Amino acid sequence: MESWRSAITEADGEQLRIRGEAVLRLMQDASFCDVVGLLLKGRLPDAAERRLLDTMLIAIADHGAGAPSAAAARVVATGNRQAPEAAIAAGILAIGDAHGGAGLACFGVIQESLERARREGRSLEEMAALVVDDARQTKTRLPGFGHRMYREDPRAVALLRLADELGKSQDGVTFVRAIERALARSTKPVPLNVDGAIAGVLFDLAYPALAAKLVFIIGRTAGLSAHVIEEYTRERPMRIRIPVTYDGPAPSPAE
Amino acid sequence: MESWRSAITEADGEQLRIRGEAVLRLMQDASFCDVVGLLLKGRLPDAAERRLLDTMLIAIADHGAGAPSAAAARVVATGNRQAPEAAIAAGILAIGDAHGGAGLACFGVIQESLERARREGRSLEEMAALVVDDARQTKTRLPGFGHRMYREDPRAVALLRLADELGKSQDGVTFVRAIERALARSTKPVPLNVDGAIAGVLFDLAYPALAAKLVFIIGRTAGLSAHVIEEYTRERPMRIRIPVTYDGPAPSPAE
Amino acid sequence: MESWRSAITEADGEQLRIRGEAVLRLMQDASFCDVVGLLLKGRLPDAAERRLLDTMLIAIADHGAGAPSAAAARVVATGNRQAPEAAIAAGILAIGDAHGGAGLACFGVIQESLERARREGRSLEEMAALVVDDARQTKTRLPGFGHRMYREDPRAVALLRLADELGKSQDGVTFVRAIERALARSTKPVPLNVDGAIAGVLFDLAYPALAAKLVFIIGRTAGLSAHVIEEYTRERPMRIRIPVTYDGPAPSPAE
Amino acid sequence: MESWRSAITEADGEQLRIRGEAVLRLMQDASFCDVVGLLLKGRLPDAAERRLLDTMLIAIADHGAGAPSAAAARVVATGNRQAPEAAIAAGILAIGDAHGGAGLACFGVIQESLERARREGRSLEEMAALVVDDARQTKTRLPGFGHRMYREDPRAVALLRLADELGKSQDGVTFVRAIERALARSTKPVPLNVDGAIAGVLFDLAYPALAAKLVFIIGRTAGLSAHVIEEYTRERPMRIRIPVTYDGPAPSPAE
Repeated sequence: MESWRSAITEADGEQLRIRGEAVLRLMQDASFCDVVGLLLKGRLPDAAERRLLDTMLIAIADHGAGAPSAAAARVVATGNRQAPEAAIAAGILAIGDAHGGAGLACFGVIQESLERARREGRSLEEMAALVVDDARQTKTRLPGFGHRMYREDPRAVALLRLADELGKSQDGVTFVRAIERALARSTKPVPLNVDGAIAGVLFDLAYPALAAKLVFIIGRTAGLSAHVIEEYTRERPMRIRIPVTYDGPAPSPAE
Repeated sequence: MESWRSAITEADGEQLRIRGEAVLRLMQDASFCDVVGLLLKGRLPDAAERRLLDTMLIAIADHGAGAPSAAAARVVATGNRQAPEAAIAAGILAIGDAHGGAGLACFGVIQESLERARREGRSLEEMAALVVDDARQTKTRLPGFGHRMYREDPRAVALLRLADELGKSQDGVTFVRAIERALARSTKPVPLNVDGAIAGVLFDLAYPALAAKLVFIIGRTAGLSAHVIEEYTRERPMRIRIPVTYDGPAPSPAE
Repeated sequence: MESWRSAITEADGEQLRIRGEAVLRLMQDASFCDVVGLLLKGRLPDAAERRLLDTMLIAIADHGAGAPSAAAARVVATGNRQAPEAAIAAGILAIGDAHGGAGLACFGVIQESLERARREGRSLEEMAALVVDDARQTKTRLPGFGHRMYREDPRAVALLRLADELGKSQDGVTFVRAIERALARSTKPVPLNVDGAIAGVLFDLAYPALAAKLVFIIGRTAGLSAHVIEEYTRERPMRIRIPVTYDGPAPSPAE
Repeated sequence: MESWRSAITEADGEQLRIRGEAVLRLMQDASFCDVVGLLLKGRLPDAAERRLLDTMLIAIADHGAGAPSAAAARVVATGNRQAPEAAIAAGILAIGDAHGGAGLACFGVIQESLERARREGRSLEEMAALVVDDARQTKTRLPGFGHRMYREDPRAVALLRLADELGKSQDGVTFVRAIERALARSTKPVPLNVDGAIAGVLFDLAYPALAAKLVFIIGRTAGLSAHVIEEYTRERPMRIRIPVTYDGPAPSPAE
C-alpha cells in the first residue's frame, strides 16, 4: 500500500507539528480554541476570530440530558459501563440532519445563494426573499431556522451581535439575517437558530462548509462527556426503561 | 505499509471464497446461518449446530423498542434521518457489559471454572458451588444469570432443552445448569438468562469466547433494523423528548 | 414522557412476540433468515423469498479485510481491545453511500423511474435509456452499477438468475437489467453490482427501501464479527501503522 | 416514564445554564476550555487550571493520519461521504485501552496506589517501586508508560513542568514521576507518556477518573475533524485499499 498523504500533522517521532506549528510551542502559548481553528481552517485565528470560535463552541456545548445526542449517549451508557467512548460516539451519531446538523445545510444555502445573487446581479435582500419563497412552495424547512424550544434563539442573537462588534460580520451574517426578516414577513415567523448563526459566521470567517457541523460536534463532545460521567457515577446500570405500547399485529393464529 | 494477513476471505476480483468455500456455491446451497457459523468458527456447521445457531440468533433478534440497544438506535434516528447506519451503530454500542454482553463474561467464567475443576479434580457441581460462594462473598453478580423482566427466562430454557435433544449439550451446558441450581439454593434464586444459555451452548460447540457477544450483535442487528425502519417511516424527526428534572447548582450569584 | 408506540415486538415479561409470532415457536421452527424477513417486511417469507434473502445475506457477508467496513473494524480493534462492539459499530459506519450503501440509492432510482414510466406511459426499456442519458449529462454515477474490482459482478448475475428461477423477478429486476443494457450501449460498459441486484430483488419482493441498505448491514455484520475475532486473537494491539507522507505547510518561522 | 434527573444543564426554553452559569454570559466571558472544565469537574477553573487544561487538550489534539483514531475516521470517510458524524464517531471508537485510553487506567493506578500507600504508611517512592515490581512479575504493562514512537514523550515532560511552574503538581504528579524513575532502574526504561502525564495532572486537579479518557476524546475530536475535512475535500471516495494476503484454508474440495 502506498503511503497516505496529509497536510495536517507531521508526527515522525522527532517532530510534532500541526499545520507547521510546533505542538510544544502551542502547548505553551495557545488556547485549545486556537488549535481548533488551526486544525479546521489551517491557520491560527486572530483575537476576534478566536473570540467568535470560543463563543460558538460554548453556545452549543450542552443543551441538557434530553437533547437527542445526550439522550443517546446516556442510553448507551446505561447498557455499556466499560466503554465511555461508545457512549460519546453514540451521542455524536445523533448529530445528523435534524439535530445539530442544520449548520452544514445552512452553510450550503448561504454559499449557493450568494453565488447565484452575484451571477444574477441580485441584492442579498432580493435573494433571501427568493429562497424563502422557494422553500414555501416546495414546503421544505430552511435549515438553520426554527427551534422546538425557542421563539427567538438567544444564542443566535448574541453570536451575531458579537460578530458585528468584532467587525467580522460580512455577507454570510447579512444573508441569514435577511432570510430571518423574509421569514418574519411570511405567515409564521421562524427565528434564526444557533446552527444558522454559526453557519453565517463561519462562512464569513472563510471556514470550509463541513466546519459548520464539526464545530457543533467538537463543542457538544464536551457536554456529552459530562453526561457520560454523570450516568456512570450517579445512576445504576440498566436504569433506563423506555415505556412502549405495542400496537402491531395480534398474536398469530398459528400459535 | 506491508499488507495485512487474513485467513477469512479471499477476494481478489477472480475468486471469492470464505474460509475456502466459494461464495457463489454458498449462495446456492447454504443458509445465512451456515455462513455465520463458517465465519465465526471457521467451518460450516452440521445440521444440529445450524439448528442451535438459528435458535440463538432468533432468541435475541429483538426485545422491543425499550431495550437500551433499540432505544439508542431510535434516539439517534430521531436526530439523524439520512444515515440509518448511524442508528444501527448506536444500537450496537449499547450492547456492552450490562446489556447483551453477559454472554462473553459468562463464557469466560465457564472456561476458567472448567479448567480449574480439571486442575483441582473437582466435580462440576462442586465447582459451581464454589463460584456461587465466591460471587456472594465479593457481592458480584454472576454474568448470564438474572433478568430485569423474567423470573425464569423461557428462551434460556428452550435453548438448553434443544441442545439436549440434539445431543450437543456437554460440560458448558451442564455447568451453567449447575450454577443455576447452586444459586437456587442461596437465599434468592436467580435464573439462567438467554445470554448465559448462549454462552453454555457456544462453549460446547467449540466457538471462540468472543462469539458469545458477537452472536448477540448479529442477531440483534436484525431487530435494530426493524426499529430504524419504523422510526424513519412512522415517526417525525425530533419527536423524542426525554423529560429532565434539573437538580444541580442554583444560578450563579455572579449573574 | 408518554410511552413510545411500536408495531414490532411485544415483550412484557409474559409474552414475547415479533409481529405477532411467538419467539419461542420461531426458535423451534424458523431460520434466522425467516426472522430477518419477518422483522424487515412484517411477514414471514415463503420458501422462495427465504431462499432469495439467504442468498443476498450470503452474497454480502464478507469481502475480505481490505473492504472499508472490515478495515475500519480492524483499525478500531487495534486500539480498542476491550469493546468488540466498538469495532463492529465502526465497520457499520463505513457502510455509507460509496460502500455498500448503493442499494438504498438504487432502490430509490427504481421506485421513481417505475412511477414516472407509469405516469408517462413509457416502457421500462425507454425509461432506462432516459435514466442513463440523464446520468451521463449530469456526470453522476448510477448507484448499484460498477465495482472497483469486477468487470461483471458474479454475485449480481447469480442473484438475478435465482430470482428468475424462483419466479420472483418482476419490474425491479427487469429495470436494473434494462439499465445495465443501456449502460453497455454507452461508451464504457458498467455492470450491475451486487448492491443494485439486491435493490432490484428487494423491490420486487415489496420490501421497504431502507431494507436495501439494512440487508447489507445485517449480512456484513457477520463478516465484521470474523474480522474482529481474528484481529483480537491473532494480532497484537496497535499493530496497524498507516504510513503517512506529510505535504503540508513548512515549519512556522515563528519557531 | 418518570423524568430523568441531571445536575449539569438547565435548558427549559427560558433559562440556559450549565452548572448554574448562564450560557449567554459564558459566551461573552469564558473560553471553551473554561466550559470543558465546568462540564467535567463542575466548577469554572482558575487561571492555572485553565492553562493546564488548554495544554492537555492541545497536546493530544492530533498525532497525524496514521494514528488508529484518525485512520479509522478516514477509512469510514472513504466509504461514507454523506455523514461526517459517522467518521468522527468511528475515530472516537478507536480510543480504547491500547490507544489514548491509558490515561483512565493510569488514573486508577494512581488512585489505588495512593490509597494503599496511606493505608500502609508507605512513601510514594516505596509504593512506586512496589507497583513496578508487581507489573514486572505479572508481565503487565503499566498504563501511561511507553510509546511506540518516543523514547521520551516531550509532551509529557512539558505538561508536568508546567504543572510544577503553576504550583499545581501534587501527589499524582509526584507518583507518576516516581514510577518513571522506578521503571528506569529496571532493565529497560519506559518513559511516562502523555496519557500518564494527563492522568497525574487531572488527579491533582481533583477531576473524576473518567476525565482522563474524556479529555483525550474532546481534544482529539478536533484533530479527527481536520482529517475528515481533508479526506472529504482532497481524496476521492473509496480511494483507500488495504492490501491483504490471504493465508487461510485452501479452496474446499467440495467445489
